Amino acid sequence: MIGRLTIVGIGLLGGSVAKAVRARGAAREVIGVARNADRARAAVDDGTLDRVTEDLAEGVRGADLVVLAAPVRTIEDLLERMWSALPEDAIVTDVGSSKAAIVAKAEALAANTPRTFLGSHPMAGSEKSGYAVARADLFQGAVVVVTPTDASEPRAVKAVTGFWELLGARVVTLEPDAHDAAVAAISHLPHLVACALVDAVSREWPHALGVAARGFKDTTRIAAGDPTMWQEIFLANAAPLREALSSFRRALDELERQIAAGDAALVEATLARIKDAREKLA
Amino acid sequence: MIGRLTIVGIGLLGGSVAKAVRARGAAREVIGVARNADRARAAVDDGTLDRVTEDLAEGVRGADLVVLAAPVRTIEDLLERMWSALPEDAIVTDVGSSKAAIVAKAEALAANTPRTFLGSHPMAGSEKSGYAVARADLFQGAVVVVTPTDASEPRAVKAVTGFWELLGARVVTLEPDAHDAAVAAISHLPHLVACALVDAVSREWPHALGVAARGFKDTTRIAAGDPTMWQEIFLANAAPLREALSSFRRALDELERQIAAGDAALVEATLARIKDAREKLA
Repeated sequence: MIGRLTIVGIGLLGGSVAKAVRARGAAREVIGVARNADRARAAVDDGTLDRVTEDLAEGVRGADLVVLAAPVRTIEDLLERMWSALPEDAIVTDVGSSKAAIVAKAEALAANTPRTFLGSHPMAGSEKSGYAVARADLFQGAVVVVTPTDASEPRAVKAVTGFWELLGARVVTLEPDAHDAAVAAISHLPHLVACALVDAVSREWPHALGVAARGFKDTTRIAAGDPTMWQEIFLANAAPLREALSSFRRALDELERQIAAGDAALVEATLARIKDAREKLA
Repeated sequence: MIGRLTIVGIGLLGGSVAKAVRARGAAREVIGVARNADRARAAVDDGTLDRVTEDLAEGVRGADLVVLAAPVRTIEDLLERMWSALPEDAIVTDVGSSKAAIVAKAEALAANTPRTFLGSHPMAGSEKSGYAVARADLFQGAVVVVTPTDASEPRAVKAVTGFWELLGARVVTLEPDAHDAAVAAISHLPHLVACALVDAVSREWPHALGVAARGFKDTTRIAAGDPTMWQEIFLANAAPLREALSSFRRALDELERQIAAGDAALVEATLARIKDAREKLA
């Protein structure tokens, strides 16, 4: 049982953390910090939060666990702004989609003022955003990556892992750099590719969209994601993303060459290999 | 009411046509032509087909409507092989994913032996294939493109349009070349891109697949499609596909440049434009 949980950012992820904790009675007190308290009012009105404040330092005072549920670039600012206000024994985690810069920031701050941070990334979300779409079961069955380093305290790893497991998630541990390369490949690259697909088709074949079937819709659903959030993710994880993009381009070039050569047997063998790889995913 | 309907190829599409027709009592007799009659036996056993034959000429004899439900390259061969066996007043259509070559083939055959063909392309399917996944409601609410030319007989346009509408589809009319450009953009390009995504990630970041969330799975679901079918589609529609691929690459390059430049406002504006375009799709 957590005493006081403070969630900074009451959107889809922060709101879902609050609802999940509330549904399980896992904290005595759940406090929200929002840039605009009026917009987070719904979460107090429906009983999910005990109260909401716009004052970050006041919001984290006395907290046992702090979850930073803001866009990825904002998280670094939040760490900076709240660090000195954190209780000495509080544990801080986040939900940012890239981890190396955030973890480095927290470790730099901890070098001067020892406080306890462990990076998290719940692989759950939606192309929709905001508290209105938050749900208590968002993390049920989802993967959450936690990213300890040599500097991480075992009690923080234990507490944060236990917290996500309590919310129904399966926790996977990766180093921050390995995490960033992995999510560049399986999350940021597909997002970028889906965006480029929508952009190319809507600009150059707008009439074709009228006959788009399920394949196009599924492949591009994520392109309706929040532009601010994804701009921050792309810029924050630009280097691993460009590496993932390079190998995507190599794979695409190879397929295009095989098709241009009209080599039916080779194209079919490549597609069969790809089908096998895809079918290994649940 | 159709008298005799002959369906050549009893897989997902051909089987679904048969089931849909049977469910509506829309034909007096439904005959299947299969390369291997034993493998189509299930469709006779469950009452969907009246009978099945391996003999194409015999199968189309006396048919009022013939639906060619084979992979796209096979359809040209089927046209060639069955043309002289067709009844004079039969109407032939198909389900091929590219249309220019098939329509040209039929028109070349008709120049010597006048018979009536109209190209169709139901924008419905699945990453699964085979009669086992055929369903009577596959065309319900789906778009079917029909591709008449100046040479098409009005009675064929009327009959084929009415046929698909009877099966619950919304019929869209496009010239064969316009169809091929449209499906290259909204079907073949996304498929190729999904394949390249799976290929790049499974070869270069196999461990990352373990944390893949819904975004990656949705974006790449179609990469598990039938390799033979997709090899044929890619080769049959290679030229329009390469054009679509060029504009995809331009869109991707532009996004990459904006990210590399670290221009947050520009990236966000581009993503907002893309989100708007995507949200216009149902």
